[in-house]
Amino acid sequence: MTKKSTETTAPKNRSTTNKTVGVNDINNNDLSSTEILPVAGGGILDRRLFLKRSLIFTTATLITESSVEAAAEGISPTNSGQSPSMLKPGNTFSNYGLPSPYESQTIRWVSANAMADGNGVSWCPLHELEGIITPNGLHYERHHNGVPDIDPANHQLLIHGLVERPLTFSIDDLKRYPMESRICFVECGGNSNAGWNKRPVQAAAGHIHGLVSCSEWTGVPLSILLHEAGIRPNASWLIAEAADGVAMNISIPVEKAMDDAILALYQNGERIRPENGYPLRLLLPGWEGVTNVKWLRRLQLTDQPVMSRNETAKYTELMPSGKSRQFTFEMEAKSLITSPCAGQEMHGAGYYQITGLAWSGKGKITKVEVSADGGKTWADSELQEPVLSKSFTRFRIPWKWDGSLAVIKSRATDETGYVQPERDVLVKERGRHGYFHYNAIVSWEIAAEGYVSYVYA
Amino acid sequence: MTKKSTETTAPKNRSTTNKTVGVNDINNNDLSSTEILPVAGGGILDRRLFLKRSLIFTTATLITESSVEAAAEGISPTNSGQSPSMLKPGNTFSNYGLPSPYESQTIRWVSANAMADGNGVSWCPLHELEGIITPNGLHYERHHNGVPDIDPANHQLLIHGLVERPLTFSIDDLKRYPMESRICFVECGGNSNAGWNKRPVQAAAGHIHGLVSCSEWTGVPLSILLHEAGIRPNASWLIAEAADGVAMNISIPVEKAMDDAILALYQNGERIRPENGYPLRLLLPGWEGVTNVKWLRRLQLTDQPVMSRNETAKYTELMPSGKSRQFTFEMEAKSLITSPCAGQEMHGAGYYQITGLAWSGKGKITKVEVSADGGKTWADSELQEPVLSKSFTRFRIPWKWDGSLAVIKSRATDETGYVQPERDVLVKERGRHGYFHYNAIVSWEIAAEGYVSYVYA
Repeated sequence: MTKKSTETTAPKNRSTTNKTVGVNDINNNDLSSTEILPVAGGGILDRRLFLKRSLIFTTATLITESSVEAAAEGISPTNSGQSPSMLKPGNTFSNYGLPSPYESQTIRWVSANAMADGNGVSWCPLHELEGIITPNGLHYERHHNGVPDIDPANHQLLIHGLVERPLTFSIDDLKRYPMESRICFVECGGNSNAGWNKRPVQAAAGHIHGLVSCSEWTGVPLSILLHEAGIRPNASWLIAEAADGVAMNISIPVEKAMDDAILALYQNGERIRPENGYPLRLLLPGWEGVTNVKWLRRLQLTDQPVMSRNETAKYTELMPSGKSRQFTFEMEAKSLITSPCAGQEMHGAGYYQITGLAWSGKGKITKVEVSADGGKTWADSELQEPVLSKSFTRFRIPWKWDGSLAVIKSRATDETGYVQPERDVLVKERGRHGYFHYNAIVSWEIAAEGYVSYVYA
Repeated sequence: MTKKSTETTAPKNRSTTNKTVGVNDINNNDLSSTEILPVAGGGILDRRLFLKRSLIFTTATLITESSVEAAAEGISPTNSGQSPSMLKPGNTFSNYGLPSPYESQTIRWVSANAMADGNGVSWCPLHELEGIITPNGLHYERHHNGVPDIDPANHQLLIHGLVERPLTFSIDDLKRYPMESRICFVECGGNSNAGWNKRPVQAAAGHIHGLVSCSEWTGVPLSILLHEAGIRPNASWLIAEAADGVAMNISIPVEKAMDDAILALYQNGERIRPENGYPLRLLLPGWEGVTNVKWLRRLQLTDQPVMSRNETAKYTELMPSGKSRQFTFEMEAKSLITSPCAGQEMHGAGYYQITGLAWSGKGKITKVEVSADGGKTWADSELQEPVLSKSFTRFRIPWKWDGSLAVIKSRATDETGYVQPERDVLVKERGRHGYFHYNAIVSWEIAAEGYVSYVYA
């Protein structure tokens, strides 16, 4: 509950009679009777304020002493009787748990081709999630011809072409090899592509920007197997092929395969789910999703790319010049505020945490700035540890919303120094027909009534 | 790494005509025709060998040039026709994914009270998992009276007792507060307690040691809410109470609540599952599971512990002196080799990766040593980054098994300098009737035939 007596915090309104404090003043102070100076316009507060844990939020309900005893017994103003869950034994144990039925809104949103229902995407509900790990059941999907049913006992990986020794590996073979784990994101090259539209699409944040997810992947470094097969000197590409109904294939430079590519068998601890490539997925950290070939069955070493559908007709980008970019493997730095975000509603003026995700295919995120005045002023958010290369990074910053129209934005910088561009800069450089690799700053407009929508601002 | 050039590893089997190398010699060499010097008895190899990626494993199958074309088409010796998954479209998209039906063995193993089926545990199958994240469906369970069905719209948290302002919070209230995420383990105080038995229990590793799991938890730092309620100077304990059928409760020192306690709402990105405390769980990083109260409904500030069943009759440890230890909150450093491990079988002599998990309730793991000769000699394993405080840490080390009887062990050290004890040391100090907090070194015996079993060695 706010303790301020008469005035508000936004700089223009700041009362000169109230005591005002900055973040360094508050270490041992109770801020309940003070004002806090913002560090950027629109009420953005110093990121370290939360660490001081001295803000008074407005959402708790003070209850009278006389009601405490009833509340302690489970009888509260909203519970006229004792909590029903305390009146009987609960459900029994389960071999494999599922989300609460009260969370039935937290699902992937499917958008498939009406004429070919195995072709399309399902969107990860980033606006319902927290932290950096995407639970396996909600990892986004992109399938070209559905999810194949593969018995791992009959699945093999073939490595052939320009190698000294063509080899096949069963899944049991692969499980015996040394493994490594890394937390990293996978993002579809087409994620956020509604941003190329002339007008902003109105949908929940995850339904626009949710073709990206982040997991702990574990598997065998591909370099070990390529060494074992023996790469011939003239081999410069690998053609990776899936065991799905279209034999989805794509070309990958040998340098990436020898760098950090993983033949992933596990996702967040358990074996990969069918829709994420069971029993075997090629993981290319930081590279566009389509190169992370699922249901991997074949790696052919060649001296040139195969020029498959998914590196010519698709996953290339038409530039304003009329030429197309091709082999744009690395996903550029990007960020997204997931709370508050489009599709959510505010609960009145007061303190909020602005939080979201940032990621870069080129390495670590080094900075995420947040603006609450449409980009006029910015402040550094707190990056949650651990900050990992080619992984989601969660950022957080406190905000005091004054209840008037506001536009909030986030802007990521990665360790190469690359800064996420504003939309007009991106559109100027790339036109509006590139379709892929849209990574512009996302702006959410918060109406005075509290509704949050997607705007170009 | 040892540089000795003429001595050996796997002494009895080594060919004296083969070249021998140490890890620093192999950077640009093909090791296929050489021997590698071990760094400890029984064939333990330098942890950096995997990084060199020059070991030749024995599990791939070399196929003839004439068979390659058929294999590339999906026709392999084990597939007389083309891969069935490539001959038809796959399954369609799903709102919420599930594991492959071919992984039906990767489940929690339920051990409930036959007279009261909501009282017991389910074991996490650590022997089937990789990495450090436990998927939500497989997080271990410990329930005292089943899993309550709680509608979050009717659930409230009450903070009362020795506070300035008794407060209640709805789940929607809590969602508006600043949050933080951390990856940390939760371990039942009774985990591994079969180790107190006179003879080692023969079961899969997770069914003996799997009352521990590790997730990314996200929620509101408890200190923020306690500050808001205002802790009175004489408040030294909190009584945390659950909304289950037994109103499970336990006493927690205020210092821990103000340090790193979190009111967790999310687990691995999504809302906490019912069996893990939906809609709200108290998370006390590094402290025994029973203090991480699920279905949290009440925190009462007091000047003394409540002396509940779960801190007197249970979760206390009878010592050889006849007295009991009480309030043993922190889980001591521990480690477990998860591959190879009890319940698994080896596939013949050759190179293997020994891998497992280490954790400590007192901070970061700084070292995990591995022995393959029953503890006579040890070598440092590789700790997988990121190494986080009060989290699972995955360790890995290469091993060349010579196919004879072997006993493998792991020994964890944490940042306080504490070293995981051998079983005889632990039993001498604590007796065999303590029941809780068993953290001795685990020994797996590998028979010449390849079967792995639990031994005291």
